[in-house]
Amino acid sequence: MIRLGKQTIKLNNPPTIVNTASIVGPKESEGPLAKYFDQCLEDEFWGEKTWEKAESKIIKETVNSVISKSGIPSNDINFCFAGDLLNQCISSSFGLRELNIPFFGIFGACSTFVEGLCLASVFLDSGAANNILCATSSHFCSAEKQFRFPLELGNQRPPTAQWTVTGSGAVVVSKVGTGPYITHITPGKIVDMGIKDANNMGAAMAPAALDTLITHLNDTQRKPSYYDAIITGDLGHIGKEILIELAESKGFNIKNIYNDCGVLIFDKNSQDTHSGGSGCACIGTVFSGYFFKQLKNRKLNRILLIATGALTNATSSQQGESIPSIAHAVAIEN
Amino acid sequence: MIRLGKQTIKLNNPPTIVNTASIVGPKESEGPLAKYFDQCLEDEFWGEKTWEKAESKIIKETVNSVISKSGIPSNDINFCFAGDLLNQCISSSFGLRELNIPFFGIFGACSTFVEGLCLASVFLDSGAANNILCATSSHFCSAEKQFRFPLELGNQRPPTAQWTVTGSGAVVVSKVGTGPYITHITPGKIVDMGIKDANNMGAAMAPAALDTLITHLNDTQRKPSYYDAIITGDLGHIGKEILIELAESKGFNIKNIYNDCGVLIFDKNSQDTHSGGSGCACIGTVFSGYFFKQLKNRKLNRILLIATGALTNATSSQQGESIPSIAHAVAIEN
Repeated sequence: MIRLGKQTIKLNNPPTIVNTASIVGPKESEGPLAKYFDQCLEDEFWGEKTWEKAESKIIKETVNSVISKSGIPSNDINFCFAGDLLNQCISSSFGLRELNIPFFGIFGACSTFVEGLCLASVFLDSGAANNILCATSSHFCSAEKQFRFPLELGNQRPPTAQWTVTGSGAVVVSKVGTGPYITHITPGKIVDMGIKDANNMGAAMAPAALDTLITHLNDTQRKPSYYDAIITGDLGHIGKEILIELAESKGFNIKNIYNDCGVLIFDKNSQDTHSGGSGCACIGTVFSGYFFKQLKNRKLNRILLIATGALTNATSSQQGESIPSIAHAVAIEN
Repeated sequence: MIRLGKQTIKLNNPPTIVNTASIVGPKESEGPLAKYFDQCLEDEFWGEKTWEKAESKIIKETVNSVISKSGIPSNDINFCFAGDLLNQCISSSFGLRELNIPFFGIFGACSTFVEGLCLASVFLDSGAANNILCATSSHFCSAEKQFRFPLELGNQRPPTAQWTVTGSGAVVVSKVGTGPYITHITPGKIVDMGIKDANNMGAAMAPAALDTLITHLNDTQRKPSYYDAIITGDLGHIGKEILIELAESKGFNIKNIYNDCGVLIFDKNSQDTHSGGSGCACIGTVFSGYFFKQLKNRKLNRILLIATGALTNATSSQQGESIPSIAHAVAIEN
């Protein structure tokens, strides 16, 4: 592989995304992308006694589905990269404990999905692996309970708040295949602009997305128009507008080709989701459900996928800390 | 690199551990390894208002120290792999937010230190990076508060309980150098034998250590006696005895060359630490402080370092779940 500029790696043998799977909760099942997901759940429990157990079941079944769809025997999948939002990433460790595949736990908050794709790409291009599984999950109820307030309180949510996506997205990536290919990775740096409002994650994460976007464009000497679409993970409506403005101030006009998975997954007018979707599963399900199919059908041929994460927790918010953020990018091309 | 057997990778261009740094808390400063650590703190707060902020400061200063000791400009360090035990790994993200190095957050509980070394090795051997920083931390007070009971309660701890190490260990690993070299990595699978006692982590993690140890030996066709020392991260006194017995039942006698960092870091008789040390920083500080110097001085020339992690949280314990565990191994040789 070749190091380009400050922090981009160009893959000599770009790995192929072989297949994807996605399962979503009831709210996502009523959104504009519902028809693209593999499975839509009718309630947040899926027969389990707790939201945490439900989330583990969702990632487990999504992973079983993607392995099956990939046609690759699970014995031939060399590593799994997975993580989630629950404390100590228990959705992944409990959901995938019977998987019997060497496991790297990763934590990038909502950037986890693309963090996994970055790591997998290096492992595949280098010959360390032939096939790798990447997965992530989130759950509205387990996330609200853990990061903000008990749902039973019925707290009012401010207009800047986002709605954590219930669901899981998983992909199998292979050393050889017919594409779509991961051609470049741009892992991000931690960026902290001092935003302290845990109900305004979009504003906290937009500067990290900007940093990774501009670094990627500079490193690769590409213009935004090289891509058919530039997609962020979960900046939501507010963060999306901020990123467009920030990019413009740096001389990059992305308005016509840029969108955010948190904006796409819910209908702002009818679903009462305020600033839009968020959570590890936001980009996980929207990429796995929607964008992967657009790439396979050649409706899109070159996308830049930028997952954004807020590296904060409930204790740090209570202790008055700001919200460090990060964004990881992969270029995916036919 | 070459894939060996089930899950081991042999590195074609084994990366060099250039230097290490370690900072420990007051309890560790009274233990048998005190003289090997770079800095011994006099109290658990180090001038900060909370234990979480103190832990962030410890990892930050340890990382600053190892970069300085490595002699490599931080601009030339391509990636950082770091994680810790705090919810959403905030010790790492807050401590390292000013680092300005592309950042991969990882979570393997107490296996995080060696998980980072595994990932770094693949990145370095493949040419994806020239220099990588790996770091981890833990803190007795922040961990007890988060995983078990408020310290102010003064709860009695059972004899099987371990004492989370306060401290941080960090290393800089480079593509070229004069050793000690990481020659092989054996990333682990999740193993869950049904242990549910959050005060007996050693018993929960020993089967994962066994699985990775035996897989490594089979994959490399090595006998335990190939190594001058086989070292686990934090099985403690009870887990260590279990691993010796389990290994013997599988036909491997490791008794004379095997030890555990949780056993080494505290004096069982005088320090009231029950089954021994634990936490991400247990293997992090003991490797960085003690074993690295033994390798540099050629008192040891071949070690197998196996970090063990319990992939559980406070909620899963309360929900009656067992403790999935994992162990990652690296062979380090002169």
